[in-house]
Amino acid sequence: MSELRRPIKQMRIKDGMTAGELIEEMSDAAFGAGRLAEAVDIYEEMLRNDTTKFFGLAGAMVPAGMRLIVKDLIEDGYIDVLVTTGANLVHDLIEVWGGYHYRGTSCADDIELHHQQINRIFDVFLPEDHFTAFEKKLLDLFVELNKKDMSIRELLMEIGRRVDADSIMGVAARKDVPIFCPAIADSAIGLQAWLHTQTQKLNVDTFKDMHEFMDICYKAKKTGAVFIGGGVPKNFILQSMIVTPKGGFDYAIQLTMDRPETGGLSGATLDEAKSWGKVGAGARAVTVYADATITLPILVAAVRERLERK
Amino acid sequence: MSELRRPIKQMRIKDGMTAGELIEEMSDAAFGAGRLAEAVDIYEEMLRNDTTKFFGLAGAMVPAGMRLIVKDLIEDGYIDVLVTTGANLVHDLIEVWGGYHYRGTSCADDIELHHQQINRIFDVFLPEDHFTAFEKKLLDLFVELNKKDMSIRELLMEIGRRVDADSIMGVAARKDVPIFCPAIADSAIGLQAWLHTQTQKLNVDTFKDMHEFMDICYKAKKTGAVFIGGGVPKNFILQSMIVTPKGGFDYAIQLTMDRPETGGLSGATLDEAKSWGKVGAGARAVTVYADATITLPILVAAVRERLERK
Amino acid sequence: MSELRRPIKQMRIKDGMTAGELIEEMSDAAFGAGRLAEAVDIYEEMLRNDTTKFFGLAGAMVPAGMRLIVKDLIEDGYIDVLVTTGANLVHDLIEVWGGYHYRGTSCADDIELHHQQINRIFDVFLPEDHFTAFEKKLLDLFVELNKKDMSIRELLMEIGRRVDADSIMGVAARKDVPIFCPAIADSAIGLQAWLHTQTQKLNVDTFKDMHEFMDICYKAKKTGAVFIGGGVPKNFILQSMIVTPKGGFDYAIQLTMDRPETGGLSGATLDEAKSWGKVGAGARAVTVYADATITLPILVAAVRERLERK
Amino acid sequence: MSELRRPIKQMRIKDGMTAGELIEEMSDAAFGAGRLAEAVDIYEEMLRNDTTKFFGLAGAMVPAGMRLIVKDLIEDGYIDVLVTTGANLVHDLIEVWGGYHYRGTSCADDIELHHQQINRIFDVFLPEDHFTAFEKKLLDLFVELNKKDMSIRELLMEIGRRVDADSIMGVAARKDVPIFCPAIADSAIGLQAWLHTQTQKLNVDTFKDMHEFMDICYKAKKTGAVFIGGGVPKNFILQSMIVTPKGGFDYAIQLTMDRPETGGLSGATLDEAKSWGKVGAGARAVTVYADATITLPILVAAVRERLERK
Repeated sequence: MSELRRPIKQMRIKDGMTAGELIEEMSDAAFGAGRLAEAVDIYEEMLRNDTTKFFGLAGAMVPAGMRLIVKDLIEDGYIDVLVTTGANLVHDLIEVWGGYHYRGTSCADDIELHHQQINRIFDVFLPEDHFTAFEKKLLDLFVELNKKDMSIRELLMEIGRRVDADSIMGVAARKDVPIFCPAIADSAIGLQAWLHTQTQKLNVDTFKDMHEFMDICYKAKKTGAVFIGGGVPKNFILQSMIVTPKGGFDYAIQLTMDRPETGGLSGATLDEAKSWGKVGAGARAVTVYADATITLPILVAAVRERLERK
Repeated sequence: MSELRRPIKQMRIKDGMTAGELIEEMSDAAFGAGRLAEAVDIYEEMLRNDTTKFFGLAGAMVPAGMRLIVKDLIEDGYIDVLVTTGANLVHDLIEVWGGYHYRGTSCADDIELHHQQINRIFDVFLPEDHFTAFEKKLLDLFVELNKKDMSIRELLMEIGRRVDADSIMGVAARKDVPIFCPAIADSAIGLQAWLHTQTQKLNVDTFKDMHEFMDICYKAKKTGAVFIGGGVPKNFILQSMIVTPKGGFDYAIQLTMDRPETGGLSGATLDEAKSWGKVGAGARAVTVYADATITLPILVAAVRERLERK
Repeated sequence: MSELRRPIKQMRIKDGMTAGELIEEMSDAAFGAGRLAEAVDIYEEMLRNDTTKFFGLAGAMVPAGMRLIVKDLIEDGYIDVLVTTGANLVHDLIEVWGGYHYRGTSCADDIELHHQQINRIFDVFLPEDHFTAFEKKLLDLFVELNKKDMSIRELLMEIGRRVDADSIMGVAARKDVPIFCPAIADSAIGLQAWLHTQTQKLNVDTFKDMHEFMDICYKAKKTGAVFIGGGVPKNFILQSMIVTPKGGFDYAIQLTMDRPETGGLSGATLDEAKSWGKVGAGARAVTVYADATITLPILVAAVRERLERK
Repeated sequence: MSELRRPIKQMRIKDGMTAGELIEEMSDAAFGAGRLAEAVDIYEEMLRNDTTKFFGLAGAMVPAGMRLIVKDLIEDGYIDVLVTTGANLVHDLIEVWGGYHYRGTSCADDIELHHQQINRIFDVFLPEDHFTAFEKKLLDLFVELNKKDMSIRELLMEIGRRVDADSIMGVAARKDVPIFCPAIADSAIGLQAWLHTQTQKLNVDTFKDMHEFMDICYKAKKTGAVFIGGGVPKNFILQSMIVTPKGGFDYAIQLTMDRPETGGLSGATLDEAKSWGKVGAGARAVTVYADATITLPILVAAVRERLERK
């Protein structure tokens, strides 16, 4: 029977296995393991081909410790276009400007934390003064920019040029990888822009980025997208394909805990995206339902192992 | 023992119970039922007091059938400030301009749907031609605006003025309830703005809204927020309190399926928000973890019953 | 197009709506709302027909306040066969023997609670001495039984006969509704049986119930099942249909937060059950993904309104 | 400030990393990554000490490809007591008796599958005839047993002795690792027992296992538990500590997607278990919220790397 071609091969785990060997074992397993192995296959094919590589980064991935993984992906040419939330950029700047995040606990006395001026992000603690230091630096940078009309992408590039390369924003600027952040106002960057514009002029056009983003989509031969979480980054990347005459993404990988049943775009399946033409009818696409702070490192380690060894 | 003051009262369900009576029964139950009853209590107190009422609307709530519930809340003065996603506004416009959404199935052949030009949103089907009709109308409206410099809020108000009042955008314009949509570019409105600005000028400043939004926060005596889902609307509403000298929201209700464990802001608890000062130390706040298309109607029905009867 | 027959009708919420009227509004909405309305339709049809009605009750539903809802369903003939977890029976006995559960908090200091001898079940607190009282009563009852060979169902019936009718176990005994609890050893009833059998004889055969359960399945004309959560109750009810020549359940309703993606039976869709023949090819079946402490009361209120009025 | 001792160290991913090296990088990250690294630390300490090691296995882990991982853990002395669901044992027997599971798709036409006699478990397909072969073998084995009074553990040991050692049941019998399965009736083993006992005698006492299980708990010096999913295995392992004078488990690891908010025991936190005394006040305990088919292999690979190298 055609449905019964691929027997499940029971995994074997040995001491000293590499990420690539683990994925090899997962490739004939099912549920999340099978899907993660499929994600590695798709990512490898996407990276080997001449694909324009979009990366959607939502969720508090920088506070969780994913900052340098993303930075290295940009540096090594694994990301051509980054779409992310303001928060990830804010926390990238906090660290590049000398601040730290700390491991805390998820069941904390939040009112006590507030008195101690510690901000909590699940089990991460961020001292208020690291935040304040970031705010001051950013306000100074806004003054320094001395430029009035920009797109969001241009603003982020200007910031990136002024920070150390050992950061997402810094390396993206060096590598000329555009960062799009449609909801930039919805972040501490937005709050500082508000403070800045109480005395100075700054005009960042909401829609100006669309032209550049669409041009990238139009020029691409093949297109692939990796989505960490959902949110604005996922939708912004996907929606571009509706108006692009490509017929949808050729490759798509989604690492998320969001579920489809509530109907929101974050949890929507990549199959649903095919009905809209956002993902191509013949595309290779997979969603892995598991914590992205676990699956992203494995995905990256395994695909690096394949690409750099062969 | 102080911890043991409130015995669980086993619920009793009778024929003909109103939403308010159901909530009454839930008020001494636990888990989701107890939390939903608490949400009704908080919402009632928030609405009875002189509270500035923020409403964060994420998820595909308009396609799901929540459009007129939100519209009526605005009309009846239950919402002072609406923050939402571009998608909810797009689907509001699709319906006010004569289009429909349809009940479909969640396990569909999405490639076949694509051939039939039907877009799927979980178990909702949207025919492509209703979408196309919306796009044409919106492009015409952009031309008609003939205005170049705006904030996002002003753009949405201009659109709202030109559509029937039996819609979220229409009634908000009539009632002078501002709609904020920081990620407007991330929607079909953004896509049409991109088309429009290929030939015409339009400059919508990303940060301009911040001033108006902050002014509302500064002027408010008491503040309350209802969050349907998370996303940008939730964060945008909450972050304003960081820079406002109020000490956080006085009331907060969250109806969501998102979970805290992945660390994203959408699933973050309202307690976590207290560590940041986004929600006040003495605030009344509750999260109900259940599908908002079920909990929102009950919440609204029960609170209307209490307010309009007493 | 055949797919586009049922337009979404936007819900309207008014003061004083009954559960039935709320469900009426939900019946042309989507996502959870649409599914809950469908569940009411299915439940109504199942109750109006001559259906053998199975009820699978998992999760801490008794501590949460659902005890008398289930008890009344048994009393009023809405349940012919109850399959549940040991825990729900234990907590039923705790209350019928004078104990209480209390509303606590979900983010508590559990070590401190342990010192205070308070057991926590999410946001429910149960004082250890109510538990101890239950244990003593149950041990006494085991002695009183003075019977050595029983099935689990018979043991539960014997207990039920000895407790007040205002309980799940009591009313089931009065109404001759069998309670099956395959994992009875996995509960405080099991722990007390262990204590009891250190000095006395008691032989409760694990497989003896299967005959009675299968006989019910064989004799049934039409079959329907309501699943609150998943676990053993769900699987035990469903698996019977594999060996029954009926072709699967005719009606099935599932109220759960479990998700399909991890592959466990609790989160498995009712469609998956059709591949096994557990649910019939032509069955009416729906899963509502939301907290059952919210959806069960509404489902029951709405279906009672329909049945008792018409 | 005491809360700010452990800065998040941003992860670095390199080509060729072993599971142990990946976990090393995760050990100063947060969210799921940090928790998984903590799980490895706890597991290592638990395995190095003279700990009685319980393993709770729920969910369809055998069909998913985790069968030989569990089997090898038993073989290598990592598991002293296995508590599992009937389903995992059934699927272990299906494979050891020559059957296979196959990779299918999660969005399938289940009625068509039913016609083709293929049973679906999320994205795993199981042909009906492999199931039938298992049933026949098991019925023959029941006859062969020719023993009437047993505990569930003894029944499973008898089966284990008669199957190849390259299976969970076979190796457990060889290694004298007891398998407990309180809800055995709730599985195809239960269904076959029902068929068997229509003509033959078999008396498997539900509570008989409790004595042996409690003896193990009483004799243990230190106790540790790994929970894959929740369900009966989790509760059965945990509840034993309520009546054991140990003060709860010393080590506990939980790999699950279940969430606490619905109040069920499957999703309950290990902190909640401390209020009951199931987990010790000073225990090391962690829950990793992610798909166990991904986290179990990594956990095992990393802990093997540590134990076998050092």
